[in-house]
Amino acid sequence: MQDSVSFDLERNRLVLIDQTRLPGELKILSLHTIEEMEKAICTLQVRGAPAIGVAAAIGLAVLAREINPQDDYEKKLREYANQLRACRPTAVNLAWALDCMLAGAHDPESLVRQALMIWEEDIETCRRIGEHGSTLLRDGDRVLTHCNAGRLATVRYGTALAPIYVAAEQGKRIHVFADETRPLLQGARLTAYELAEAGIPVTLLCDNMAASLLSTGKIAAVLVGADRVARNGDAANKIGSLGLSILARHYDVPFYVCAPFSTVDFCCEAGGQIPIEQRAPEEVTQAWYERRMAPEGVGVYNPAFDIIPNENITAFVTERGIVSSQNLSK
Amino acid sequence: MQDSVSFDLERNRLVLIDQTRLPGELKILSLHTIEEMEKAICTLQVRGAPAIGVAAAIGLAVLAREINPQDDYEKKLREYANQLRACRPTAVNLAWALDCMLAGAHDPESLVRQALMIWEEDIETCRRIGEHGSTLLRDGDRVLTHCNAGRLATVRYGTALAPIYVAAEQGKRIHVFADETRPLLQGARLTAYELAEAGIPVTLLCDNMAASLLSTGKIAAVLVGADRVARNGDAANKIGSLGLSILARHYDVPFYVCAPFSTVDFCCEAGGQIPIEQRAPEEVTQAWYERRMAPEGVGVYNPAFDIIPNENITAFVTERGIVSSQNLSK
Repeated sequence: MQDSVSFDLERNRLVLIDQTRLPGELKILSLHTIEEMEKAICTLQVRGAPAIGVAAAIGLAVLAREINPQDDYEKKLREYANQLRACRPTAVNLAWALDCMLAGAHDPESLVRQALMIWEEDIETCRRIGEHGSTLLRDGDRVLTHCNAGRLATVRYGTALAPIYVAAEQGKRIHVFADETRPLLQGARLTAYELAEAGIPVTLLCDNMAASLLSTGKIAAVLVGADRVARNGDAANKIGSLGLSILARHYDVPFYVCAPFSTVDFCCEAGGQIPIEQRAPEEVTQAWYERRMAPEGVGVYNPAFDIIPNENITAFVTERGIVSSQNLSK
Repeated sequence: MQDSVSFDLERNRLVLIDQTRLPGELKILSLHTIEEMEKAICTLQVRGAPAIGVAAAIGLAVLAREINPQDDYEKKLREYANQLRACRPTAVNLAWALDCMLAGAHDPESLVRQALMIWEEDIETCRRIGEHGSTLLRDGDRVLTHCNAGRLATVRYGTALAPIYVAAEQGKRIHVFADETRPLLQGARLTAYELAEAGIPVTLLCDNMAASLLSTGKIAAVLVGADRVARNGDAANKIGSLGLSILARHYDVPFYVCAPFSTVDFCCEAGGQIPIEQRAPEEVTQAWYERRMAPEGVGVYNPAFDIIPNENITAFVTERGIVSSQNLSK
């Protein structure tokens, strides 16, 4: 299967699966200008905190290799990094990946090596999240997930879906219930798509059906990803995660946040400090931009993320193992 | 403003606003065959528990007036009533209205009088719900509602929106936050539409944003309708209501169910006995039936309703006043 994000070294291109076209069309983007990269991140052609980070790292290396010799190389490089960094405010992996890129030597070939290292590390990290997380799943389990924290949100494997992929490799039969995830339907379009491709049984539901589903007592666990985790274990994730965490706690269903340590923002004390991106009203009023589903002029509340308080998180599944929020920053 | 449901006595027609066309088009349906009426109820051209009840009553009177003299009148009438009753299983008002129609004399003119009485009673009942409910709202309040329990769900005024309309008449400034209500977007298409028409400020949100909104502490109350209320005060309402009631309780926000006494099913002990309608997967997979938003063959969980347990309901707002679930059947 095609990696969601990769580096075409020969043609010097950032290669992405265009996630806005799924599930209808598998379109591959091949980018080399800053404008194309900004567009890809801002319009969610690439999305998912880890995938955005990797894409920005590869993107910066691609751009570095094409800086005009007449330009001030260092200045131009920092300009590009700032432009990429500004595309989305909530996911910390974007800033983390760019900081990694700028921390070492800045010549193009060093940046290429650094980008490839970040890319490989993402694969390895997600694989480990999957291995640790799979120990939480038993044969026959039904699990619920929200948004897409699967292979499309990373290079491979995913974060919240990695334990499911690894459990499936181990021969466990896991049935995934996927919240469709309004407004942009990442659950319906991406999670259902990638699980179905992998032959893992998946049942789609609207976000507001999760309480009904959890009340049946048939769901063994809720698994979600994260866009940024504060030092106290509060976690920003796709809008709807907060509500889901309250419902899971109400029905006594374990709630796991699966994320690499690069998602932890050690500069951020608590969830209240995480900036929440507000997105365009049209995402809500024009059902996938095609037809207006609400009267003209109506106000819209459209935060892209909310904050899961640490007390609602049973544990974090990370590349280093399963840790409680108390032990996250130790 | 056009009533959602009315009786054209002269032409002997059931007259409905086609709610599947809103907000784009205000189309008026004028029906006189059983097939048209079944289609109207099954495809949600008319929806909302009270409106369905009134429509079925008027529909039955229209049909009674056109029964062929060669036919067995009583037998045909009962057949029609059973066909209408079978259209939707959860809302009790449908069965209630048909039972009222069949309880008295069965000649066409008696049925016409009975249907008009049910129609007038709905207007009066909703007005009273509005008057009682408005005492719960203060100037400047922000309230959250789910689905559409407004004038489009009844003849006029609505149930959950009636207190807001009456409060607005009293000069109180109320700001309504409306859950869009997947899968059929009654909140976006109908609630936002009718409130905007009435000049009441409304902000739309996706269902999964309610927790984020409630966590701000700015919402004074949640108001919803009901499709059937059990004797113990458990209430069936549009899918998503259960989750919303848990969130409201978590954030200590009063949660009111606004419904006429005709919604109480005194034969039903508790919520677990209320049949829950499962609807077609395409409602979820094909964003308003237009374009497929999920891969082919994916399973779908699509219950149309869920059950709000009585302990999550602060009070019922009825035509007889504001009552606790304990006092509902007294």
